[in-house]
Amino acid sequence: MQHDPFSPATAAIVLIGNELLSGKFRDENAAWLAGRLRTLGVDLRRIVTVPDVEADIVDEVRACADRYTHVFTSGGVGPTHDDITIDAIARAFEVPVVRDPTLEAILRAHFKERLNAAHLRMANVPAGTTLHHGGPIAWPVVRFRNVIILPGVPEIFRAKFDAISSSFQSLAFHIRNLWLNSDEGEIAGLLEEVERTFGVQIGSYPRIDHADHRVRITVEARRPAPVDAAVAALLSRLAPADVVRVDPPCADPEIDDPA
Amino acid sequence: MQHDPFSPATAAIVLIGNELLSGKFRDENAAWLAGRLRTLGVDLRRIVTVPDVEADIVDEVRACADRYTHVFTSGGVGPTHDDITIDAIARAFEVPVVRDPTLEAILRAHFKERLNAAHLRMANVPAGTTLHHGGPIAWPVVRFRNVIILPGVPEIFRAKFDAISSSFQSLAFHIRNLWLNSDEGEIAGLLEEVERTFGVQIGSYPRIDHADHRVRITVEARRPAPVDAAVAALLSRLAPADVVRVDPPCADPEIDDPA
Repeated sequence: MQHDPFSPATAAIVLIGNELLSGKFRDENAAWLAGRLRTLGVDLRRIVTVPDVEADIVDEVRACADRYTHVFTSGGVGPTHDDITIDAIARAFEVPVVRDPTLEAILRAHFKERLNAAHLRMANVPAGTTLHHGGPIAWPVVRFRNVIILPGVPEIFRAKFDAISSSFQSLAFHIRNLWLNSDEGEIAGLLEEVERTFGVQIGSYPRIDHADHRVRITVEARRPAPVDAAVAALLSRLAPADVVRVDPPCADPEIDDPA
Repeated sequence: MQHDPFSPATAAIVLIGNELLSGKFRDENAAWLAGRLRTLGVDLRRIVTVPDVEADIVDEVRACADRYTHVFTSGGVGPTHDDITIDAIARAFEVPVVRDPTLEAILRAHFKERLNAAHLRMANVPAGTTLHHGGPIAWPVVRFRNVIILPGVPEIFRAKFDAISSSFQSLAFHIRNLWLNSDEGEIAGLLEEVERTFGVQIGSYPRIDHADHRVRITVEARRPAPVDAAVAALLSRLAPADVVRVDPPCADPEIDDPA
């Protein structure tokens, strides 16, 4: 998708791997990247986990690349037979798979005389790919159009994203939390009214464990003023005894970054 | 999807909620349910997180209900204005939303004179829904055709699924792990050959942290014999010094349940 520079960028994450669906491994990459994208002001709209099945990867990457500014894939880029992400992305965009000379040179320098055909698969990319260098790991980030192709190993996933993260900076979010002892149903009408009046997004998250509150309310917007006005309106209408804690106003620079 | 009783059941999980995409909350429900479905022998094929946007929920639930035996939704069933899962599922199947008298009676008994219109929204269901009682929580599981509608609060999600989990029992999986100090690229050809020869699924998961192994290999099938034969074939071809640990044979009943 072409990105309108006056709107916040959007994103989708496509996690690729049978191991995430079988319960053998728990996702760490989407959970981590969701927080990073938030900090950068990118609006994450979708997270999908698909198996190592080419048709599933092709359909999902194509649909997400059409709808969102950025698509991040995780996994399926190693040397083994179940690593089919590159082939699937090439097929999704109907371009051939080619061997990249820069990646091949890195592999040859690393593996030397042990280099084999499986290792060399890691130098394959969809034709038209760009490479982005930076960060502590020599291997560059592989990008095809608006699809950023990241490996599944969490340490490498994080290091590679951080190396290029500044290129994704968008409009900031502002958020304040209210921790309440209210019954969620009894304040539902108030939340809806305040959301509509101030043009903010309000979330409501009940707890049934032994936390010190029964529900956490989040108030968010792209500018700080409506968030503060909406929180003031809520506090003026809630029973004071039900308010356990409230984040300080958005004017406080500490909470402009919700990381 | 109609389930062929001689094939393993398949499943998708649809997580609904802006809070999972903004990084405010980390998913616990899909990660937990993936393991439970594995134990039950259900083949989980897709996990999707969508925002509180009706069109996104409608499209995803409809597509998954067509393709998979079971669809589990998580979230968006509370009393607040952002709880739109019921409306979206009704729209996906083109049925009206109706008020269920059993659910309404539970709400009236619980909230008594404090009951309001927001609470009563929790008694709304797509017309044609069935209720499934059981477990420690009085509120029944709401099911519409092959869509099981679960709440997002993790403690309730788990208790409700466990109350009805026996109805999802399918064919078991058998799995053995090998922890190796091999280079993943150097054994890639061997893994592919053994997978093809024995009709098993082989996964390969490299580590770059300070674990005692460089790669974990998983060998899986619906029957135990091909798993054991494939593992024996791998062990006969790997350098013994590279084999850190291996799971015992599938004949051992302890590992028939990979939970």
